[in-house]
Amino acid sequence: MDENFKALEFRDGALVLIDQRILPTRLEYFTCRTSEDVAFAISDMVVRGAPAIGGCAGYGVYLAACEANGDRRAFEEKCSRIRSSRPTAVNLMWAVDRMTRKAGECGMDTAVLLEEAHRIVDEDVAMNKKMAEIGASVIRRNDVILTHCNTGALATCGWGTALGIIKKAHYDGKNIRVYADETRPRFQGARLTAWELVRAGIPSTLIPDSAAATLIRDGMIDLVILGADRITANGDVANKLGTFALSVICKQYGVPFYSAAPTSTIDFEMKDGKDIPIEQRDKDEVVRPGGVLVAPEEIGVYNPAFDVTPHQNITGIITEKGIIRPPFDLNIERIRQGETL
Amino acid sequence: MDENFKALEFRDGALVLIDQRILPTRLEYFTCRTSEDVAFAISDMVVRGAPAIGGCAGYGVYLAACEANGDRRAFEEKCSRIRSSRPTAVNLMWAVDRMTRKAGECGMDTAVLLEEAHRIVDEDVAMNKKMAEIGASVIRRNDVILTHCNTGALATCGWGTALGIIKKAHYDGKNIRVYADETRPRFQGARLTAWELVRAGIPSTLIPDSAAATLIRDGMIDLVILGADRITANGDVANKLGTFALSVICKQYGVPFYSAAPTSTIDFEMKDGKDIPIEQRDKDEVVRPGGVLVAPEEIGVYNPAFDVTPHQNITGIITEKGIIRPPFDLNIERIRQGETL
Repeated sequence: MDENFKALEFRDGALVLIDQRILPTRLEYFTCRTSEDVAFAISDMVVRGAPAIGGCAGYGVYLAACEANGDRRAFEEKCSRIRSSRPTAVNLMWAVDRMTRKAGECGMDTAVLLEEAHRIVDEDVAMNKKMAEIGASVIRRNDVILTHCNTGALATCGWGTALGIIKKAHYDGKNIRVYADETRPRFQGARLTAWELVRAGIPSTLIPDSAAATLIRDGMIDLVILGADRITANGDVANKLGTFALSVICKQYGVPFYSAAPTSTIDFEMKDGKDIPIEQRDKDEVVRPGGVLVAPEEIGVYNPAFDVTPHQNITGIITEKGIIRPPFDLNIERIRQGETL
Repeated sequence: MDENFKALEFRDGALVLIDQRILPTRLEYFTCRTSEDVAFAISDMVVRGAPAIGGCAGYGVYLAACEANGDRRAFEEKCSRIRSSRPTAVNLMWAVDRMTRKAGECGMDTAVLLEEAHRIVDEDVAMNKKMAEIGASVIRRNDVILTHCNTGALATCGWGTALGIIKKAHYDGKNIRVYADETRPRFQGARLTAWELVRAGIPSTLIPDSAAATLIRDGMIDLVILGADRITANGDVANKLGTFALSVICKQYGVPFYSAAPTSTIDFEMKDGKDIPIEQRDKDEVVRPGGVLVAPEEIGVYNPAFDVTPHQNITGIITEKGIIRPPFDLNIERIRQGETL
């Protein structure tokens, strides 16, 4: 159960990322030598996926500490630049908070901070493998699974969340098949998930996002598993644009709908999905897919990166501490109290 | 109430089309001098939209009669090539049937056939303007309208169906605003509807298809109006991929959902939408938007051009003979009997 690629790796004093803006055309790497490089890589989506962003942010804070060289104020400015590189993913805030807390404890000892950044990555991979074990219970032999966006090794520090669960089912010989939504506007499903599925040898079909509804209605999909960028205390899930519509269709036609994410994705302080800030992204993502103009320049564009799925539409949230099922608010509180479900 | 462009026009013995594969980058024309050119233009989507395809098919049959020069068998072969250029739009079959029936009556007199082809176009424009009058009753002042795919002057022989209704509301000073779905995979909303909206000066916003669901849920959309490629006797509607998902979301959140199409779109012989043949289109539409590869070549693709919306999700079907409302089967039968609703 391992990949033959590393989406993020810290070596020779730099964070080396697979450049996800270029996949699947070419496999190229993007090297971050400074905390500013890391912030740029996150905001320009060289790397994306909430857990991968968290992993990168850890190294970003380490690099910030090296650059600040003991200057606490410079360090904090650099950290706040990293923190604001994407607004929706809670893992980013979580990782920066964890690193700055550690920096406070160790007097900005860079060796300690590098160790902590490595720990974030190692823990994420371990959590993903744990989630894959736990999530196995929801996938039966011969299931056909629909997924959205990318939640694989490219979206995490390794292995993946929702796609990690799907890959494990394949390697366990469950004879699954996968439909992957292309995921407009940035095509993470086409560019990244399809690339991971092909590499893993999983029988898969890529579809325009709008094709999912008919497949679900016609009984062609046994379950949906996808990721989460932020989960609120009541079980609402912010995830890639398109998730909410899928959840409505699944509920209407009785198809199980799972989100998979480490518990670091839960924002225990936020009661309700309505309060999640939704990042608006650039017009060009819509009017210039792949750099080619497909709309008149004069047209206005509304391009939210995420949408919010109400917990009422969710069958379960698969975490490394068990599957959270309704009543979500009570079970999320149990997670917060340190319980395993 | 007129356009400053003509999507299709017969002049100097040839059918001249705006090449809709190239819009909005450049306004170029594609000239069909033979019936084979017309069949190619339809199948390669130089022209698209059920009523526009019907209009082109009329001229295609006229050109076939000129080429056949009295050879009935050659004529029929050419007509069947046109008939099979797209499988889902019933207007195509309807126009070819009307023209071949006329050919039988007039002994393949080409002057009579050209007159008949012109008549199909003129009737379509007149029907669209009638539909715009009738559809005006569903749009109130300050309404925000969501539409999908392209149903404007480019999709018809002139003016448009759903977009014609929307344009009339704008010219009537109703202070409307429009959200246009980009309409993957071929971006007809981005390429064509946005182009028509900008030309008409209607305040408009282009969105990824997946963004519609949240707008509908959050009360940002007052009604949806879109087209139809085939309507069955029970009121089910085949239309561009993505229509069905929108209909489920609208029903869930109580937003009126209208289809607009001339009664020539109704397939009175087909009882139920489940029997409508759904055209599968090329993999490249999904993996190479705008010619740029966005997915690994090895991945399988499922790319249906249309989906079927059950009549239970439809508020009304706006036609030139009135608005068909539930019970759809009874009211469609009244249309078949020649009644106006």
